[in-house]
Amino acid sequence: MDLKSLIRDIPDFPKPGILFRDITTLLRDPEGLHYTIDFFTKECIDAGLQADYVIGMESRGFIFGSLLAYKLGSGFIPVRKRGKLPAAVHSIEYELEYGTDCLEVHQDALQLGSRVLIVDDLIATGGTASATAKLVQQIGCELVGFGFIIELRDLQGRKHLPDVPIISLIEY
Amino acid sequence: MDLKSLIRDIPDFPKPGILFRDITTLLRDPEGLHYTIDFFTKECIDAGLQADYVIGMESRGFIFGSLLAYKLGSGFIPVRKRGKLPAAVHSIEYELEYGTDCLEVHQDALQLGSRVLIVDDLIATGGTASATAKLVQQIGCELVGFGFIIELRDLQGRKHLPDVPIISLIEY
Repeated sequence: MDLKSLIRDIPDFPKPGILFRDITTLLRDPEGLHYTIDFFTKECIDAGLQADYVIGMESRGFIFGSLLAYKLGSGFIPVRKRGKLPAAVHSIEYELEYGTDCLEVHQDALQLGSRVLIVDDLIATGGTASATAKLVQQIGCELVGFGFIIELRDLQGRKHLPDVPIISLIEY
Repeated sequence: MDLKSLIRDIPDFPKPGILFRDITTLLRDPEGLHYTIDFFTKECIDAGLQADYVIGMESRGFIFGSLLAYKLGSGFIPVRKRGKLPAAVHSIEYELEYGTDCLEVHQDALQLGSRVLIVDDLIATGGTASATAKLVQQIGCELVGFGFIIELRDLQGRKHLPDVPIISLIEY
């Protein structure tokens, strides 16, 4: 299936000069959604990326992360923006183009040695994925890899990630 | 499986006097996640709630909405807070305890007569679910029902929803 044909390009979102790759058109297509998730699952299994937990980042990462966790038989753990998780959290601050942002995970969600797969819809500059990786590695988890639906190769986000397998289904 | 035993109670979140029902402990349990999704799917099928599209509300609704869409063979459509969706949107404002909030859906995501199932993690007062229902009904969709993991019965959220089947797996 030609997954790229299900991704919509939106110029100048969220700001002028950015070409946004919109996955909502893929999600609303029943065959596209099914194919994408089954393909993503197979790629992860083939690459040995089965883990105790799949982590998905708020909020589009919740969609693919939870689906992958279900398919792989793993638990799903959400990483959220500051103040959204109700129990005690570990936090990490990371740099944005302007200012900083913060990601959090529940303190009792992960243990020393937990095997973790990080999933998001898209990797651009890799800031969010890199911060999430640092967060789980600081806890002492074993990061087994990353899975993305879309990778924007020109932005070289991979360069900022630890040396573990990285899967992406669609490249631009 | 005793799903309630996988839900964590957190007092005074997000503010004093609120007892928050935390589903992250269910999500991180592989058997709990699998059982919940398979049970949710079966309940929807048994109630005749198969639809062209499953709608999930930002952001915990993304988790269960996309999983249910995958399992039912439907498309998934996200309903988001203001300004998050990249293409042209239909919007609805709705009342909160203090002030108003806004939900949006892509204009080309739904058509006249589309059969729609609305899914969220939890129904409390029903404000978000009711606003989402109005949004899809204004577009001319056929709302087939609602699905929630948790229902807080005391808050009588059901009373604010249209007269269609409502499924909830766990009641308090």
